[in-house]
Parts: sequence; C-alpha cells; structure tokens
Amino acid sequence: MNSSNNNYSVIHTGKLENINQSRFSLESLGTIQGKHFLKDELNLSGMEVSLNILPTKTSMPFFHKHNENEELYIFVKGSGQFQVDNEIFDVSEGSVVRVAPVAERTWRNNSAEDLTYFVIQAKENSLTGSTVEDGVITTRTVNWEQTVEHA
Amino acid sequence: MNSSNNNYSVIHTGKLENINQSRFSLESLGTIQGKHFLKDELNLSGMEVSLNILPTKTSMPFFHKHNENEELYIFVKGSGQFQVDNEIFDVSEGSVVRVAPVAERTWRNNSAEDLTYFVIQAKENSLTGSTVEDGVITTRTVNWEQTVEHA
Repeated sequence: MNSSNNNYSVIHTGKLENINQSRFSLESLGTIQGKHFLKDELNLSGMEVSLNILPTKTSMPFFHKHNENEELYIFVKGSGQFQVDNEIFDVSEGSVVRVAPVAERTWRNNSAEDLTYFVIQAKENSLTGSTVEDGVITTRTVNWEQTVEHA
Repeated sequence: MNSSNNNYSVIHTGKLENINQSRFSLESLGTIQGKHFLKDELNLSGMEVSLNILPTKTSMPFFHKHNENEELYIFVKGSGQFQVDNEIFDVSEGSVVRVAPVAERTWRNNSAEDLTYFVIQAKENSLTGSTVEDGVITTRTVNWEQTVEHA
C-alpha cells in the first residue's frame, strides 16, 4: 500500500516490467509510453526521478539538454547506446551515466530485449559539503520485534 | 570502457550482483560490504548515488538521519522492510521511497534472496522550477548511422 507523511513517502510500482504500461503526456511531446515520473507522487523537493523502458530496436527521436539540472542515468536491464554531443558509448546493466545540463543527449535500444533504466535530475552544483558526513547515526535502537507493521 | 569529459561520465559496474563485491570504508563505521558510492567517480555536483545489496536475513544495525539531504531509495530486486520513525512498511521490486533529512530510517532484508537497491541524495528544497520544463529539445538530428563508436 502506498503511504506517506511529512517525513516519508512510499510508492509501490510493482515489477519493473510494469513500466511498459506507464504513460506520460506533455503538450509539446504528445504521449510517451514507458515513462513514469515520480517527483510529484513522492513529494520530492531536491530531485526528480523517472522509471523508464525503451522497447527493443527503438531510439529516442530527439536530443535534449537542460537549463539547470544535472542528469543521472542508471541502467538496470537490457543494452543500448548513449550519445552525448559527439561521443557515443554502449550501456547495459550496471552502466551509470552523468550528463551536464548543457550537453546534448540521446539514446537507443539496439538490443532484442527491453532497455530498463532510471533517470534522476538534480540541480547542478546544489550539493554542499560531504554527502557521507551529511548522514548522522542516531541513538534509536533497531528492534524489528517491537515494531508494528503499517496497516 | 569507462570514459568522461566535462559534459558526461560513464561507469560500467557490470551485473548488479557484482555490488556484493563492493566495499565502502569510513572511519566511524568500519568497512561495509555491498555499497558502492559513485558521486566522486562520476564527478556529480547535484547528487550522490550508491548501488547497494543487503544480504538475506540481515538488517542495517543502526538508524540514521541527514543534516541537509533528502534521500530516495529505489528497490530493484528482493524484498524487505523499511522503517521511518515509528512507521514500518514492506518494500520489494519497484518500491520507491522518499525520506526527509530529519527522519530516522533503517531497513532490513527479511527474505531469502539479496535485497538490491539504489540510494540517491540531493539537497532538500534545492530544485527550482519544473523538472519537465527544465528539459529542452534541441535541433541536432538523431542519426545513429553517422556516429562513430567510442574507442
């Protein structure tokens, strides 16, 4: 069950193959199948995230860049090719790509299975300080036996 | 092959099961197996990302919170439980969780297989404007036949 309060939100999208059923509509692009944006659903304030499937033997039909946001692509299934400006490279399970806002990017699935990947946007140069030191261990004791499961 | 310039970076970590071999060391925590931080390797400036595997029947041994950064957890394989403050819920493939900096969080793998997930940090409230409108389609033509593959 999806649930949330000010401190957290959780959405259960199900098996990753379900991404195929997602649809995203934008006036300038029409309807895109296989793309599920989650920022608004999760109430994120520092990043956007989308779950994506590009079907076999298809390409993004355009290049795009960004005004402010850095992008991170995490590939989890399938294989394809990615182009940034004049550079092209293969991607597959476990490939992780950073793209600066100003760069022109596109990608394709030239394989025989779905290309499954996540895209995260965050504002370029917005991190301050060390991300490792940003985490603080608290004194609360972990005790799974005392917890009551969320209804 | 890993490659990069100012406009992009790509790292090929291989099959997600390889995350098991990753090790992360921090003076205050000792060495953690199955955690691969990528911000420095990718030269990210707006977010941190880690690839993670928590082995079967194990729990994070502590709760932690953050000073500045919102966290996003994306679960891609296996199942477990997640606790935020006094709330507990199940997570599995396709579960996506937002956690506010101030919230205390821990999680466990109470299943019979590895729990595989990604964690992204970004500064709370750092996004400005619409993430969809931040993207701009450019006039460059997509033509995979004209491209030369990266050596």
